Amino acid sequence: MNQIKVIVAGPRGRMGQEALRMIEKEEGFELVGCIDRKHDGALVRDIEGLPNLEALIYTDAEACLRDVGADVLVDLTTPDYAYKHTKLALENGVRPVVGTTGYTKEQLDEVTQLAEDKQLGAVIAPNFAVGAVLMMQFSKWAAKHFPDVEIIEKHHDQKLDAPSGTAAKTAELIQEVREPHHQGHPEEKETIQGARGADVDGIKIHSMRLPGLVAHQEVVFGGLGQTLTIKHDSHHRESFMTGVKLAAEQVMNLDTLVYGLEHLLD
Amino acid sequence: MNQIKVIVAGPRGRMGQEALRMIEKEEGFELVGCIDRKHDGALVRDIEGLPNLEALIYTDAEACLRDVGADVLVDLTTPDYAYKHTKLALENGVRPVVGTTGYTKEQLDEVTQLAEDKQLGAVIAPNFAVGAVLMMQFSKWAAKHFPDVEIIEKHHDQKLDAPSGTAAKTAELIQEVREPHHQGHPEEKETIQGARGADVDGIKIHSMRLPGLVAHQEVVFGGLGQTLTIKHDSHHRESFMTGVKLAAEQVMNLDTLVYGLEHLLD
Amino acid sequence: MNQIKVIVAGPRGRMGQEALRMIEKEEGFELVGCIDRKHDGALVRDIEGLPNLEALIYTDAEACLRDVGADVLVDLTTPDYAYKHTKLALENGVRPVVGTTGYTKEQLDEVTQLAEDKQLGAVIAPNFAVGAVLMMQFSKWAAKHFPDVEIIEKHHDQKLDAPSGTAAKTAELIQEVREPHHQGHPEEKETIQGARGADVDGIKIHSMRLPGLVAHQEVVFGGLGQTLTIKHDSHHRESFMTGVKLAAEQVMNLDTLVYGLEHLLD
Amino acid sequence: MNQIKVIVAGPRGRMGQEALRMIEKEEGFELVGCIDRKHDGALVRDIEGLPNLEALIYTDAEACLRDVGADVLVDLTTPDYAYKHTKLALENGVRPVVGTTGYTKEQLDEVTQLAEDKQLGAVIAPNFAVGAVLMMQFSKWAAKHFPDVEIIEKHHDQKLDAPSGTAAKTAELIQEVREPHHQGHPEEKETIQGARGADVDGIKIHSMRLPGLVAHQEVVFGGLGQTLTIKHDSHHRESFMTGVKLAAEQVMNLDTLVYGLEHLLD
Repeated sequence: MNQIKVIVAGPRGRMGQEALRMIEKEEGFELVGCIDRKHDGALVRDIEGLPNLEALIYTDAEACLRDVGADVLVDLTTPDYAYKHTKLALENGVRPVVGTTGYTKEQLDEVTQLAEDKQLGAVIAPNFAVGAVLMMQFSKWAAKHFPDVEIIEKHHDQKLDAPSGTAAKTAELIQEVREPHHQGHPEEKETIQGARGADVDGIKIHSMRLPGLVAHQEVVFGGLGQTLTIKHDSHHRESFMTGVKLAAEQVMNLDTLVYGLEHLLD
Repeated sequence: MNQIKVIVAGPRGRMGQEALRMIEKEEGFELVGCIDRKHDGALVRDIEGLPNLEALIYTDAEACLRDVGADVLVDLTTPDYAYKHTKLALENGVRPVVGTTGYTKEQLDEVTQLAEDKQLGAVIAPNFAVGAVLMMQFSKWAAKHFPDVEIIEKHHDQKLDAPSGTAAKTAELIQEVREPHHQGHPEEKETIQGARGADVDGIKIHSMRLPGLVAHQEVVFGGLGQTLTIKHDSHHRESFMTGVKLAAEQVMNLDTLVYGLEHLLD
Repeated sequence: MNQIKVIVAGPRGRMGQEALRMIEKEEGFELVGCIDRKHDGALVRDIEGLPNLEALIYTDAEACLRDVGADVLVDLTTPDYAYKHTKLALENGVRPVVGTTGYTKEQLDEVTQLAEDKQLGAVIAPNFAVGAVLMMQFSKWAAKHFPDVEIIEKHHDQKLDAPSGTAAKTAELIQEVREPHHQGHPEEKETIQGARGADVDGIKIHSMRLPGLVAHQEVVFGGLGQTLTIKHDSHHRESFMTGVKLAAEQVMNLDTLVYGLEHLLD
Repeated sequence: MNQIKVIVAGPRGRMGQEALRMIEKEEGFELVGCIDRKHDGALVRDIEGLPNLEALIYTDAEACLRDVGADVLVDLTTPDYAYKHTKLALENGVRPVVGTTGYTKEQLDEVTQLAEDKQLGAVIAPNFAVGAVLMMQFSKWAAKHFPDVEIIEKHHDQKLDAPSGTAAKTAELIQEVREPHHQGHPEEKETIQGARGADVDGIKIHSMRLPGLVAHQEVVFGGLGQTLTIKHDSHHRESFMTGVKLAAEQVMNLDTLVYGLEHLLD
């Protein structure tokens, strides 16, 4: 099959480096350029820590998108840059795959319209971890049949916020489908405050923080005589590359913008 | 809402007893009769160990199905009886919900046609454990994105066969969707025979048997830097009643025969 | 070997019934009498729901302890009765194995002295679940080397209190051995209150309550690049009989009172 | 407190690098020299990838041990070198902490005698992962009370051998304490070969291999109505440094050779 020609924006970031490694390894992809704030005119292989790839680095995003003949832009920069790059990509006939979350409603509407006008595929995803996205989709499904559910998320002890964004998002998705429902014994009481966790519309979330943990979540559904558990364990950010790869492949078959990896996972 | 009028066939069996308890507890159901090989003319409440329900017991299945004005037959007998009862039910305008697995292809075709002719709903399900059926459906979905998968099933040490039927069925469903795929290191070797488990088309199944276990299964999917696990734990056969209840409710809205609980779980 | 002759006090209670079934099954034990508030003069087998055993039931505890020639009294009654029975047993040369928690300090001192005077073994244990007691002992050990620890306990949703007594006891035992220690990030914050659980001197406890759960606890220790987890799952009160059996056997080799099953588990 | 002065042998190996990072971070240690086959006379900080430490590198092990005034030698080289270094260390008054497994019985006897003669502490440990060693010790203890046990070990799919050395070692330790014991149903049968795993004197071991796994083991004990599980999850080789640190501290208080980290973990 034809290789998909890819530009990576943000090649020196953690995610960017993983993306370069994935492209280097996968036969279906070819790196044809990078967009970076620095190193204009250098080759990727000249930058310490990056893989041995020949692609040219541009600081001028528009020039890169116009000149290198790419099929797909994989953008792993910050929200501001991502928004600008997405527009430039679509205007230059390159399909964007964007992994940042910070689009405003207006920006999203604008790039959605632009993709439609150009009849070009585009994927914008707040979360590229296929396993985590599947966990959320399965949870949404399971909650229809098991309305009693709690979430435990476990992370390393350098994480500042509790609960995690993924846990809160999971609870929100479950709320969309389950009927209003009181969980637990009506006269339940905490003899030590906090034992029953954080409450999101009746769904309890528990956050564990310990050294030696990385990023883990369990969604536990309880029913008569049984429990059903959906668990995701992630120990390396390369886990996101499964989703980047999937999006970069499927965006070639799309002619509109898709928001959220879940729409590519049926 | 109107109560659904139910006949239970096999009320003294383990599953039958659970079904009676479920009907007793659920407001949406009313027990209107039982079919049993013994105790013709007795009331359910007269039989030791059964709940305090007034319904009459019939040894003549046809008489019961004809006379008590039931909506649904919940059949928890053996395959032979189940087949006969299913036909009698449909002929008498009662919708069958059947929990046995032993139908031949011919018998299934025959009752499917009969349901169609009568335009009556019917549900035949080899497995009424909603959690286990969801586990299998999720596994089928996950395997599209994570083709590397192994199964661990854990049961009490009185179980004779390994692997369990559910584990084998799960592997079979996964095989339907994943691309042919070699798992593990090509030069992997067992220094003690059996360490890598049973092989079902490349999917490894491991069977643990210990006192103190009941019925548990984990399906583990591995990908870059992450694993996704779907786990079902069952500790009481009342777990099957979630599925019987669901089927007995949904069969009222069907006008054909449905084989397999999974088709009622979207 | 010689059978150990046992009296059971409280034979109709849940634990008492389990004890009778254990004695019936184990060749090393023989039931020689029961102490009950009712059914004086009846045989065990005459009481509905009890096993087919010939032993005589006494409402007069002293008469029973004096007359039937028992080696061991297994007392599964309430604290008040247990205290009285313990004294009567020791005075009549019978070794008590007692499974209630409500002794006052004075009562405990008194029966300890009495056992010493009589040079008779005695076992009083707040918890007869060997697995749970081992979990606590292992946790105490592990905490010396991994001072970062959190506890998750999971129970059915009919349980009123959170956290469970076992979880609180585990945290207390860990506190005895670990150096004072702040866990987690110093600037950690809960965006939803309760996410980080109940705090017992820096140890976090999380309580899950769902239908389909029975009684489960995980103690998770985190260290550099690793976690160590000790997990106990109990799904039936027969789990306590492992400890009752152990205590009834070992009490024959003791000549003082032992408080707590952990002292019999080295 | 006084810092412990350490020499690291094998500083460029994976374990050696972790040891350097540990020493850099821990206030209780000071690096005073390294033994390496290359880079004689260079400083650690001059070697690419190593931490910013001033210690001098020696290719002559004896010179290093004689001249730099070290308290402890942390040796993370190969068995041959480790044996030579251990002897040289003891002869020069430096306490060895050695992390390789390949000593012959004769070599071990020899260095044990040498440590005794010199009245110097020494630690030789096949496994420095404190969590794994505790898991094995707890398993040995639990097996006295729960003789029914199975092991599941899970590793990445680049691992060649199954079962893992740790799993085999765990089974061996359990065998030392439990009474001979048939597990499972006497008429149990595998409908697919290998389902019941590898058999080590009746203990079943199951080996899972998947991408996304790192190094995990569960030891599951089953009893009446309960299970007890001891689980170790390791995702980074820094996990071994907890044990190296412990050994390097405790060796200062020893005056004989200790074989196996378990003897330092009570």
